[in-house]
Amino acid sequence: MTPDIDARRLLDRIEAFARIGGNGDGGITREGFGAADLEARARLSKEAQIGGLDSTVDAAGNVLIRRPEGGRGAEGRRVLLFGSHLDTVANGGRLDGAYGVLAGLEVMQTIVESGAELTYEPVLVAFSNEEGALFPQPFWGSKVLAGALETLPEDPRDRSGRSLRHPLALAGGDLAALSTAVWPAESVAAYLELHVEQGPVLERGGRTIGVVDSITGRTQLTVEVRGSAGHAGTTPMELRRDPMTVAARIVLAVEDLAGEQRLCRVATVGWVEVQPNSPNTIADSVRLTIDLRDSVPSNLENAEQALRTSLASLGKQAEMHIDIRVDARAAPVATDPVLRAAITASADELGLPHQTLPSGAGHDAQIVARIAPIGMIFVPSIGGVSHVPEEDTAATDLVAGARVLLRTVLRL
Amino acid sequence: MTPDIDARRLLDRIEAFARIGGNGDGGITREGFGAADLEARARLSKEAQIGGLDSTVDAAGNVLIRRPEGGRGAEGRRVLLFGSHLDTVANGGRLDGAYGVLAGLEVMQTIVESGAELTYEPVLVAFSNEEGALFPQPFWGSKVLAGALETLPEDPRDRSGRSLRHPLALAGGDLAALSTAVWPAESVAAYLELHVEQGPVLERGGRTIGVVDSITGRTQLTVEVRGSAGHAGTTPMELRRDPMTVAARIVLAVEDLAGEQRLCRVATVGWVEVQPNSPNTIADSVRLTIDLRDSVPSNLENAEQALRTSLASLGKQAEMHIDIRVDARAAPVATDPVLRAAITASADELGLPHQTLPSGAGHDAQIVARIAPIGMIFVPSIGGVSHVPEEDTAATDLVAGARVLLRTVLRL
Repeated sequence: MTPDIDARRLLDRIEAFARIGGNGDGGITREGFGAADLEARARLSKEAQIGGLDSTVDAAGNVLIRRPEGGRGAEGRRVLLFGSHLDTVANGGRLDGAYGVLAGLEVMQTIVESGAELTYEPVLVAFSNEEGALFPQPFWGSKVLAGALETLPEDPRDRSGRSLRHPLALAGGDLAALSTAVWPAESVAAYLELHVEQGPVLERGGRTIGVVDSITGRTQLTVEVRGSAGHAGTTPMELRRDPMTVAARIVLAVEDLAGEQRLCRVATVGWVEVQPNSPNTIADSVRLTIDLRDSVPSNLENAEQALRTSLASLGKQAEMHIDIRVDARAAPVATDPVLRAAITASADELGLPHQTLPSGAGHDAQIVARIAPIGMIFVPSIGGVSHVPEEDTAATDLVAGARVLLRTVLRL
Repeated sequence: MTPDIDARRLLDRIEAFARIGGNGDGGITREGFGAADLEARARLSKEAQIGGLDSTVDAAGNVLIRRPEGGRGAEGRRVLLFGSHLDTVANGGRLDGAYGVLAGLEVMQTIVESGAELTYEPVLVAFSNEEGALFPQPFWGSKVLAGALETLPEDPRDRSGRSLRHPLALAGGDLAALSTAVWPAESVAAYLELHVEQGPVLERGGRTIGVVDSITGRTQLTVEVRGSAGHAGTTPMELRRDPMTVAARIVLAVEDLAGEQRLCRVATVGWVEVQPNSPNTIADSVRLTIDLRDSVPSNLENAEQALRTSLASLGKQAEMHIDIRVDARAAPVATDPVLRAAITASADELGLPHQTLPSGAGHDAQIVARIAPIGMIFVPSIGGVSHVPEEDTAATDLVAGARVLLRTVLRL
């Protein structure tokens, strides 16, 4: 008999983790390396140990969960890695990331309990700081693991200048030993990630399972406009150098990139910081983030180029300095055809309606693609929303996704 | 011989108070009822007591400094009130407010030390929370004293919902007893306020003393745009309801009111708050403040009306709710001709070049005008700047302003 997951145990765990960092209204703030994230990570390790699994933390803060016999007898054996992340954006939902980790834990426990034989050694990973909500190094954990950081940064900091060193140590990591967390390319046979779609496609199509064919590329910038602060009542309009009005024009230029101009699929300003941010005072500086996404590399490049041209023109016109910092550039990534076929076959076996679709959001999988073939499984998002308290997926779909993950792991 | 102030003592005090709430780069953050403000208020009371004066705090947190004999024998005697405020905006300068209070303390000490005879009883006031940087009730202290709050609010709160009750109690006030801080109209014979100009007029004209003829009117609004949060990568542009882009259009509409349209003299958005403020997430809501100023009441009304029309149109177009809250409306106020003449005569006696000018900034004087004739004395602002760390005035001008205040007080 094919082993099956314990649906109740999975759903109960999802409920339990939703309370860690919960804001009371359904929203969850469990920013990477914040207090709630540390609590969730500790809880994961504890549950794994209770479930008869080994849990360790690497230097980058990734939580790695193995079979006890895997830890002893798996020298040289290639790994079948699967997982996701536990951290969230500010006031996000309970499923983005956590679902893939908790379903992965359920799959690991089912494998151990059933004594299933596997070609590759299964390892569950909870990558650290995928969202980059607090420390603006998104995909931190997967980047370190995949050796995708061009240079291991000496001292990454958050937006207010706080060093990652101490929070990382609290999480069980070690900034001075990051190179020990890098995995050799040949060590991973495949990486699987189960995730909520975070968009409307599966729900509108009435499918339970999404087989991801590509993950969107993404360019993240932080822009700072520096003007001259002054008294809001006494500084004549013609003598002002008000960065707020330039920032407003930048927000509209960003919207235009994906709207009117259709240079990339989506473009967003989601974060703004004004200094000194006083109703009485013309701003001294305004910082904002710009997020561009597309599945075609040249579209991303063209959108960024057009944006830079706009910023140069706005800065010149307003006689203000506009500083552009590239926080991250993630290239679009295709999934592996063999893994896609395995996911499709598993869904077919279970009688679950499925469809192929691209991922509009970024995922750790796109980073792991540097060292291994990747596959991604989606389940529907109710209303197509994510990164909000209302983010949700029907319980039957959550269970179905975990079953597809288990079948795919057993199949490989 | 006419009494004179102690210039060294005045300048030393200005230096000493600049260290309270100092940010190290010359900027001062001494927001009303914040920790630094409480420290400055306590220091003022102590210095007054050392100087042989009585210091009390009324229920609104205003610090009132009297002659000891005035406290005993002044029943029924009308008051000559003068002063300003000790609180600042975030990262503001050392003179806005504090100069008028410390020059007033110097004048009080000089009166006591010289034993000067006065028709009216001199009282120095340091009004609480003039700027409204922390608690958005600007002119709080002067409004309570002048009975200018239409209804005494039960429980004013800051932008994050914190009640004023506890900080006010720490300052020596009492939210439950505000009515005891209201002065009867006939009790004040005149109110004088010495202040830095905060604009470029005196410096450009080469004059030491400004005789203010009117104080600008001001309308302060807080606007909230409510959209729908969503994932920045998966929500198609055509399905978004992004309040950030509407807020950007509002910032430009506000600029346009005083710029292109010239409906009012100046218009400013200085404060913005985004929820949830995450680079990954389309904003759920954006709040911003709008500050409109003009010396002609109908201009302010027309500008606000035009703004409301723009907001209604923007909200309708974007299908988003835009909420408008009026935080304060201050009508333009004329100063008293007799007090203007007294200030002018004092400057002439001291051989100081002077000119008449309007005040572009708001001041407690415009509130006290509800119960008493007011007069305002300006000294030049270097570079015309204020509400910034660079705010400054030449030492000779600071001394000159205090001398004009003393002469005017002695003259009345």
